[in-house]
Amino acid sequence: MTVHVLFAAGEALWPDYRVPLAEALAEAGVEAAITLAAPDPAAVDYIIYAPGGTIADFTPYRNCKAVLSLWAGVERIVGNPTLTMPLARMVDPGLTEGMVEYVTGHVLRYHLGIDRHVANRSGAWLHHLMPPLARERRVGILGMGELGRAAARALAALNFRVLGWSRSPRAVDGIDCHCGPDGLDTVLSGAEILVTLLPLTAGTANILDATRLARLPRGARIINPGRGALIDDAALIAALDSGRIAHATLDVFRTEPLPPDHPFWAHPAVTVTPHVAADTRPATAARVVAENIRRGEAGEPLLHLVDRARGY
Amino acid sequence: MTVHVLFAAGEALWPDYRVPLAEALAEAGVEAAITLAAPDPAAVDYIIYAPGGTIADFTPYRNCKAVLSLWAGVERIVGNPTLTMPLARMVDPGLTEGMVEYVTGHVLRYHLGIDRHVANRSGAWLHHLMPPLARERRVGILGMGELGRAAARALAALNFRVLGWSRSPRAVDGIDCHCGPDGLDTVLSGAEILVTLLPLTAGTANILDATRLARLPRGARIINPGRGALIDDAALIAALDSGRIAHATLDVFRTEPLPPDHPFWAHPAVTVTPHVAADTRPATAARVVAENIRRGEAGEPLLHLVDRARGY
Repeated sequence: MTVHVLFAAGEALWPDYRVPLAEALAEAGVEAAITLAAPDPAAVDYIIYAPGGTIADFTPYRNCKAVLSLWAGVERIVGNPTLTMPLARMVDPGLTEGMVEYVTGHVLRYHLGIDRHVANRSGAWLHHLMPPLARERRVGILGMGELGRAAARALAALNFRVLGWSRSPRAVDGIDCHCGPDGLDTVLSGAEILVTLLPLTAGTANILDATRLARLPRGARIINPGRGALIDDAALIAALDSGRIAHATLDVFRTEPLPPDHPFWAHPAVTVTPHVAADTRPATAARVVAENIRRGEAGEPLLHLVDRARGY
Repeated sequence: MTVHVLFAAGEALWPDYRVPLAEALAEAGVEAAITLAAPDPAAVDYIIYAPGGTIADFTPYRNCKAVLSLWAGVERIVGNPTLTMPLARMVDPGLTEGMVEYVTGHVLRYHLGIDRHVANRSGAWLHHLMPPLARERRVGILGMGELGRAAARALAALNFRVLGWSRSPRAVDGIDCHCGPDGLDTVLSGAEILVTLLPLTAGTANILDATRLARLPRGARIINPGRGALIDDAALIAALDSGRIAHATLDVFRTEPLPPDHPFWAHPAVTVTPHVAADTRPATAARVVAENIRRGEAGEPLLHLVDRARGY
């Protein structure tokens, strides 16, 4: 029996996903019809979703068995009261790999002091800037989900001393894991380089406010490839201006693209990267979607289901 | 019986090594007297050496059992005809770690296009600069010795496609290894990012000349933390000027410090780092020296002996 799949992630993404989805569904042994529009919403079995897509009201899709997000972050959809069916996040191995590469690259950039050498055209031989070894450098990671754990493992493999924080207790081999409010203070106060990889929820919005930024060691660096609203922008700028925080590399923002007049662009202690840390890759993401449709049809539990109470 | 050790690596290094050497020798169970000068050269059992040190003529040290270098590279001493006793190179775990961090950091810097983002203060949202995944990026490493293998393993762990080249055949898990002249062409023609970690010998001096630089794919990047003389400076500048090679990051030079008027400093496609990729660390290097003295006294084979014929 043909499964009806509505691609509601926006027409812009359709050319990237059309072939990979057809291939992944065939590989998964699912006979499916995928369409960009559904004349009869009640006939739709699964909705593939991304923010900026074509659906705001899920009410008419009353027989839909699951909404499958192409994004890892679901904060723009999880509070939608018309979305009453199961919702699955994207956990894409391609996205995880890209994130690990971005985090490792920028941690090493700060660790090695690369910017200073790139900028030095003076002829001054700054041999005294020899960095310590990674085993002498403490890196904090806020968020020990799929992405945080993968980044932590890659950094630990390079001998960095990694401190991980999550809301609830987590154990990760080789990582010094902490949780709860006291654990957050421990991780912040130890982090020479801090990476924020938390999901955005009511509990994590502005988690790095003025008080928490003040817990970081003087001269700390921040890398935020998670969500823009995890950090209080004004508090970060004040901490950078005072020199308490030495530098920040930000990939995500409250408004994207980051408006050209935003103070982050011109700030000498900020590097803006244009949401390039990690992206869902059609080839690998299509396989995750297809596997969830296969599971739904076989009556097996879906992968990466969102917990509405937690918000991710 | 007391072993007489002459610290001939220069007075400048003595304050860094005095305590670590005494501790490491004690740990190794060697009763030793370490001095900065030897009134009676014939009484010296071991010489600790570094370029710029205090000995040019080894003839008077006729009972010396071994010369123990604090440097990995021995090209400034291996051809000394008065050095007839066994010569051991430094293979310092601290040095290897520092090198892996430098290579991984600069490979990721090129892979992620970090410089472009650091320099972009225009407000332009360059999302199209999203990099490919490391699994789609080929990195070549010339030199599969201790340092090359360690760097190759770290890059392969980040999913880079690593091509390794060495003079004689080597097998390294997960690395696509090549050797000999044909193998060099294969590695060069595949390397989007090339790392040079060869020892400097008669066979490797200027190994990257105009002909070999022309084998690299257009737009390749070069990272040289090995030895300055591995690359023909004028040929590299010509290749950068023509755009064939997109960028080079150089840590080692024919003359160090690199003179302020050298064209590398001002070249827009060159980053100079001041020989900071890796350094011998006194704490770990002292243990290697002490272990070799222990072995020498116990009649066991020394570690990291230099092959005079190969030159390293």
